[in-house]
Order: sequence, then C-alpha cells, then structure tokens
Amino acid sequence: MSSSDIFLGETIGTAVLILLGGGVCAAVTLKGSKARNAGWLAITFGWGFAVMTAVYMTASLSGAHLNPAVTVGIAIKDGEWGDVPVYIAGQMLGAMIGAALVWVAYYGQFQAHLADPEASGKKPIEGPGPVLGIFSTGPEIRNTWQNLATEIIGTVVLVLAVLTQGLNDSGKGLGVIGALITAFVVVSIGLSLGGPTGYAINPARDLGPRIVHALLPLKHKGGSDWSYAWIPVAGPLIGGAIAAGIYNIAFA
Amino acid sequence: MSSSDIFLGETIGTAVLILLGGGVCAAVTLKGSKARNAGWLAITFGWGFAVMTAVYMTASLSGAHLNPAVTVGIAIKDGEWGDVPVYIAGQMLGAMIGAALVWVAYYGQFQAHLADPEASGKKPIEGPGPVLGIFSTGPEIRNTWQNLATEIIGTVVLVLAVLTQGLNDSGKGLGVIGALITAFVVVSIGLSLGGPTGYAINPARDLGPRIVHALLPLKHKGGSDWSYAWIPVAGPLIGGAIAAGIYNIAFA
Amino acid sequence: MSSSDIFLGETIGTAVLILLGGGVCAAVTLKGSKARNAGWLAITFGWGFAVMTAVYMTASLSGAHLNPAVTVGIAIKDGEWGDVPVYIAGQMLGAMIGAALVWVAYYGQFQAHLADPEASGKKPIEGPGPVLGIFSTGPEIRNTWQNLATEIIGTVVLVLAVLTQGLNDSGKGLGVIGALITAFVVVSIGLSLGGPTGYAINPARDLGPRIVHALLPLKHKGGSDWSYAWIPVAGPLIGGAIAAGIYNIAFA
Amino acid sequence: MSSSDIFLGETIGTAVLILLGGGVCAAVTLKGSKARNAGWLAITFGWGFAVMTAVYMTASLSGAHLNPAVTVGIAIKDGEWGDVPVYIAGQMLGAMIGAALVWVAYYGQFQAHLADPEASGKKPIEGPGPVLGIFSTGPEIRNTWQNLATEIIGTVVLVLAVLTQGLNDSGKGLGVIGALITAFVVVSIGLSLGGPTGYAINPARDLGPRIVHALLPLKHKGGSDWSYAWIPVAGPLIGGAIAAGIYNIAFA
Repeated sequence: MSSSDIFLGETIGTAVLILLGGGVCAAVTLKGSKARNAGWLAITFGWGFAVMTAVYMTASLSGAHLNPAVTVGIAIKDGEWGDVPVYIAGQMLGAMIGAALVWVAYYGQFQAHLADPEASGKKPIEGPGPVLGIFSTGPEIRNTWQNLATEIIGTVVLVLAVLTQGLNDSGKGLGVIGALITAFVVVSIGLSLGGPTGYAINPARDLGPRIVHALLPLKHKGGSDWSYAWIPVAGPLIGGAIAAGIYNIAFA
Repeated sequence: MSSSDIFLGETIGTAVLILLGGGVCAAVTLKGSKARNAGWLAITFGWGFAVMTAVYMTASLSGAHLNPAVTVGIAIKDGEWGDVPVYIAGQMLGAMIGAALVWVAYYGQFQAHLADPEASGKKPIEGPGPVLGIFSTGPEIRNTWQNLATEIIGTVVLVLAVLTQGLNDSGKGLGVIGALITAFVVVSIGLSLGGPTGYAINPARDLGPRIVHALLPLKHKGGSDWSYAWIPVAGPLIGGAIAAGIYNIAFA
Repeated sequence: MSSSDIFLGETIGTAVLILLGGGVCAAVTLKGSKARNAGWLAITFGWGFAVMTAVYMTASLSGAHLNPAVTVGIAIKDGEWGDVPVYIAGQMLGAMIGAALVWVAYYGQFQAHLADPEASGKKPIEGPGPVLGIFSTGPEIRNTWQNLATEIIGTVVLVLAVLTQGLNDSGKGLGVIGALITAFVVVSIGLSLGGPTGYAINPARDLGPRIVHALLPLKHKGGSDWSYAWIPVAGPLIGGAIAAGIYNIAFA
Repeated sequence: MSSSDIFLGETIGTAVLILLGGGVCAAVTLKGSKARNAGWLAITFGWGFAVMTAVYMTASLSGAHLNPAVTVGIAIKDGEWGDVPVYIAGQMLGAMIGAALVWVAYYGQFQAHLADPEASGKKPIEGPGPVLGIFSTGPEIRNTWQNLATEIIGTVVLVLAVLTQGLNDSGKGLGVIGALITAFVVVSIGLSLGGPTGYAINPARDLGPRIVHALLPLKHKGGSDWSYAWIPVAGPLIGGAIAAGIYNIAFA
C-alpha cells in the first residue's frame, strides 16, 4: 500500500468512525433528537456498527486500522514501523474531521441542548458533563490506576481479536467478514468493559474529538477535562503492545 | 440486466423495503399494536433488516439499488445513465405499493389510533404528527440548512459503503454478505445520524409514501407536510453525488 | 434426502424452533423469570435466533423447512409434492415436542405465575391471556379479514426470501449464511409486521403448541381460543402459495 | 493440535469469555457503571459476543471448546478422550483468570457497590445476591429437578448446534462464520431458556468464577451458594452427553 492510500484510507475511515460513533452519543444525549435516551444498547451497537462501516469502507485502501493501538500492535507483531507515522497522522486528522461533522449534523440539537440549563447541567457527582461525552470518554469513578487498567484490558481484547483474524480468515485480513466480526467484538467490549470509563480503547478516538471540543465555539460547553486525557491515550497504546506480546508468544 | 428485470426487481424490492420499514414505524406508533413503544432500537433494526430482506431478495434481478441516491451514485461512478429512469420508476412505484401494504397490514390499528384523539394528537412542539411519521420523515427541529446537511451526510455514508462493496466482495456486488453489511450500515446511520431528521437517505422512501399518505382515505390523518418534502429528496441525491465523487477521487 | 432423514430433521428442527421461540415468550411473560418484561426486541430477536439455530442444525438432514408454508411454497415452485406429507408430519410432531419442552424448562415459573391471580389475569380488552400467548398467537384487534391479510403478507415476505436464497447462495440452499439471513428476515417480519397478530407465519408453529396448550394439565390456564386457530393456519398457507406464484412469475 | 496449544488456547479463550461475560454482568449490576440496568438484552448479547470473541480468537489454537460440556460432547461423538483433561484444565484456569480480571476492571465499582447497603442488599425472596450473580448463576425459583432440567435442555441445544457445524461448514469447524453462528445460538439460549436459572450451560463458566468469588477479599460479598453449585456442573455435562447421543443417532 502506498503512503497516500494509507493516509487517505485512515483519514476517511476514522472520520466515518467518529462521525458515526460520536453521532450515536449525540443522538442519545441531546435535546431535540429522536433517539434521546435510547440507552446503552443503542450506544454500544452504534459504536460497533460505526467500526464495521468504516472498516468495510476503507479496508482496501489502508487495511483499516483506524486506531493507533491497532497500528502499534501490528507494528510490534510484524517488526515494521515505517508506515506508523502516516497511519497515526491520518487517524488523528480523520478523528477531528469526524467530530466536526457530528457538530454539523446535530447543529440545532447542540444549540437547543446548551440553551437549556437543565439538559446541559453537569451530572451532580463525577465525570464530564454530557456534551463532552459526545466527543471523548470519561470515568464514572475517577481512579487513575483502575481507569488505566480498564482501558488496557479492553484494548488487549480488541487488538488480540484483530491480530488473530489472519489465522482464521485465510489471509484476507480485515475483509468483509472481518468487518462484521470486528463490529461485534467492539459491541462486546462496550457491553462488558465499557461501564467504568466509556471504553476509548483508541487514542485517536478520544484525543482528536477532545481537541475539537476545545476548539468549537459552543457556549456553556464546559471544560475538556484535560487532566484525564492521557489515560485513554496511554491505556490503549499499552494494551495494543501487550496484545502484540501475547500474540507473539501464544499464537505466532 | 434487462429493463423489465430492473423494473420488476426495483418495484418488488422497494415495496418490500417500505412494507417492512413503514411497518416497524406503524408497529411502534399505533394503538392496538403489540410492539407499541418498542423504542428507537426497534425502529433502527427494523429499517436495517428491511433493507437486508429487500436487497437479498432482489439482488439477482436488478442489483437491488432500491434508492434513487444509490442509482445516481452508481451512475456517476460508472458514467452510465441509460437505466436510471427505469430504476427510479420502479423505486417510486414500489415505495407506493409498500406504503399501501402497511395500511392493509395495520388497517384496524390505524382505525383505532385515529379514533382516539389522545393517541393521534400532534406532538405539542414541532415535527409531523405520529401518523405521517409512519409514511415519511420529518425533522425534530426545523432548520432547512441543518436538515439538508444531515440528510446529505447520512447518504454519503450509505452510498460510499455501497460503492466500496465491489472492492471487498470479489465483484459479486450486493450479494449475500453484502446484504448483511448493508443492513448494519443502515442500522448504523439510523442510530448515529437519525436523531435530527429521521434519516430518509432515500428520496423514494420518503416521497412515495408521502404521496400515499396524501391519497389514503384516513380520517383525522393531518397534513402531509409538503413544505418539508423537498429536503429528503434533494439531500439524498446530493449525498449520492458527493459519495460518487469521493469514490472516484479516493478509491477508483 | 430419504424420508426418514426428512422426518427426523423436521421433527428435531421444529422442536428446537418451538422450544426456543416459545421459550422466549415464557421468559418475558412468566413470574419468576429473570427475563420478565424484557420487551418486544427480546421477543423478536428470540424468535429470529430460534429459527437460525434450528435451520443451521438440521439443514443437512431435511433442508430445514420447519414450516408448512415453506414446504408448500417450495412444492409449488418445483411442482413436486411427494415429500410434503412427511415434511408436515415432522413439523407438527416437532412443534408439539418443543411446546412440551417449554413447559418442562419453565415448570416452576408456570406454577408460580398461574397461582398468582394478578399475573395470570386476562388482559382487560381483547386477545388471549398471557399463558396462551406462550403457545400460540392471537390478535390485538380481532378482525378476521385484516388478521388473515396480515398473516398472508408476513408469510409472503418470509417464503419469498427463502425461495430467492438459491439465486444468491450458489445453490447451497439454507446453509450457514442462509441460516443467518433467514434469522434476520424473521426478526424483520416480527418487528415490522408482528404488531397486529403476533406473526404466526407458520401453521405448525401455531397449531402444534395450541394443541399442547389444550392438553397440558395447567390450572387456570384459560381457553385455547379455537375460534381464531384457523387464521394462523390458512393465512400462512395462502401466503406461501402467493410467494411461490410471485417467484415463478418474476424470478424463475 | 499439541497439548500445549490446546491448554494455551483454552486458557486464553475461556479467560476472554469470562472476562467479557462476567464483565457484562458487572456492567449492568454495579453502582458507578455507565451500563447499570441496561437490561436483559444487554446481558444476553453481551454473553453471546463474549463467546464469539473468544471462539474467534482461539479457534486456531485449540478448536475453541471453552466449555467442558462441549469437550465431553465432542469426545463422546468421536470416541476420543485423550485430550479431555487438558481441555478441562485450561478451561477451569481460564475461567478463574477471567473472573479475576472482571474484578480488576470493575474494582472501583465493586467498592462503591458493596459500600452501599441498599445497592448490595440481597433480593428479598430467592436467588443469590447481585454480587454473586456477576460470578456465577443462580435460580429464580429453587427447584432441583427443574433447575437441572433447564440446564440440561439449554446445553443440549448448545452442544448439538456445535456438533452439527461440521455438516454445514465444509469441515472448517468453529471458524469465522462458526464463531458468529455460535454467538447467536448463545444469545438465543439466553433469551429463550435463561429465565429460570441464568443459563450456565458450561460447568467451567460457573464453577471457576464461583471459586474466585469465594477467594476474593470483598467485604459484604455474601455467601457463594455452594449448595447450588453442583447443578450448573452436572446439568451441562449431562446435556453435552445427550447432545452427542442425539448426534450419533440422527446426524452421523
């Protein structure tokens, strides 16, 4: 794959991923959305199918990593780091484009929601207010080591599932069925390990939209919770590396 | 494919699509339905599986576009416009047949619902009343440019996902697995981008049933909201064209 | 396929279908079930995966019709009626075995439910009480022609989807992917067309368990609503025949 | 397959299975989880996708039994018992590792939940308190013969579905599509037969985490309900044997 195809594939794919993933968070959160309060199943299937759509669409261009933790895991597994910067650059740019598109698609809903003091009010206890939650993740109970551990564990499952696809899929990698399996792996991680931190399991998915949240001209949007921002970056990268290690020991 | 197979396939397929898609809206809306108030997940999976069933059934006849935005996107991609009128004629006829079949299948429920002033009452604020919502889409917050943008964005995702299938599916087009992937792409768009406008993302899906709503002899059915009707036609067509442009630049 | 394989396959398959399908109705209905009130999505996915499991398990033995409407549709399409009685005999026996197994699996729940006058009370208006609903279907609004029409329409969709599988699936019939597609077609029919009558769309699925309901020694179980029983038999058979006609005209 | 690959595959696979399966129970149960009260559909899909992820990941190493009932069923079917102890040892070790990882991932939630007397209070009537329910199963209505029968029936469906995969899947066994089908079979059993006992249908899934529950230093965690513990071990083993018998009579 050429560098330009990689960059293009990762940019388009991650933009679609965040448009759809951030979109479902906007859909269930914001005032004036038909899907408001559709619940946790809607969020987890929404993110799962977001991954499926984006992977399926861009697998032929870049292999559809769409996640620096996947890129790092594959690089460790294969011992090839040359394309890593291009992958991550495309992923970060795509994530920011996707988050901006969520804002466009839900423009009137953001306005109506933030104009309503009750709807936009921070939750009384912990965690980011609901509008930041459309862009990036935050813990229900703030506990650095547990939050980090949860993100690591979730990402180990994700990246190990991606790395082992080659063993079943006759070498076709993240193809048609791979996209479907990956979607349901992501739903699974969301349902089972998403409760404590909201399952970033992808540094670009969290950091890109957080930057967009900080930049967007939204009144009353609240802070971007930068003190937490390193955990959904470091945790997934550590998790991706551990998954590659398990793969090389047990599966290679 | 012969013109008669295209017309037959698109008519049958779009009729099944609207029968099942409009059917789930009737099921969750109308008084006297076992599925009443089954929620947003039921609606989005209902429409997704409606697409899957219709695509799977008619792919061998016409390629199962079932959507003028898909037909236009494929025509731009391939530069071939000869069959476009036949496709769109079949889609419009099928959509109207499907909407009429919803009325037959839920005949007693429509009667009971419209006879109950509380059940059929317009929602206090904005958007079409619940009976029109069984036939065509309407915005939660009426904002021409945002509503148009949301329909464009959703359709770009749909049509780009359809166009890129050929890259993964060894040329078989919208076959068995393609029908499944397309179903979940539609669920994804519904969950993630359906909140503001109800995701028409298909001009025939919205206009055909709106015409049937205007014609049906239903007492107290309310207006057909013709002032909004151009948005779910124009938005998807623009989105289909943009998707074809992205495909030709990035994927071809 | 030998007659004994057909009989065995249809008996086992329909028993599994009704065990799982009736099971989900028991699960969401009965007092003392963890799944009580799990909702319409649980019921529709429960029936869909019941079909998938049963079809997948027995496709190699009998082709997994598991439904007289499918058997009749295939017989009309192919013009071969020789095995039809064996298929239907297996389906009826299997449906009765499956319904009896539901009673075994939920024995304590049936006892607890029927001992509680409030839980087992008939719904105030129309339709069978909740215990009959575990065995067979009933209309929300009793209207002979509409109820019949709804069952016909739902079965046309089901049988046409089954008949067209051969066109996409390179002749493998109801194989692995076919089982998955069929599952989601059944979920779709449930979500979209199940609201008025509870979607029997299968004479054996309704009549076999209704006979078991009449025979089981359950106190306070109420009547078996025999006046309605012909509709979920006749409607699906008519629907299967119409689907075969559409297939022979449009697809053959 | 070598004994070390079998042991490694079953250990990793069952650890992932219980991490994700126990995880969804923690997610919907514990205070301070974003998924709290997400409902029965979340639990059943969570367990189904847990199976899919674990099977898909480890099929190439050990064939991904991940369940002593499956191992016993395959051993009876094939008449080969040599590897059975290695399989079961890996499954038990993996299940205990998985249960411990659930505790790590939800550490703060366990603390918050058990510190709140109302959240951790035993349900007034029957069945284990909610924290034991994260680790192992328990009946809603305690009835030895019915509880055993329900576990047997559920496991017959599971193991028969696994054994018949070879008949459809051109000998590839539990491969890519097999993982998906198995996932939905497990969702089906959960939705349809999970109501009375919580569907262990796997001795390792129940016994391993129950041991971890007994060992974990959690205050106010309550008892481990050892008097019930034999049922979700014996029932699934009997069910696996019956399924192998049915297979050998009807399908072989």
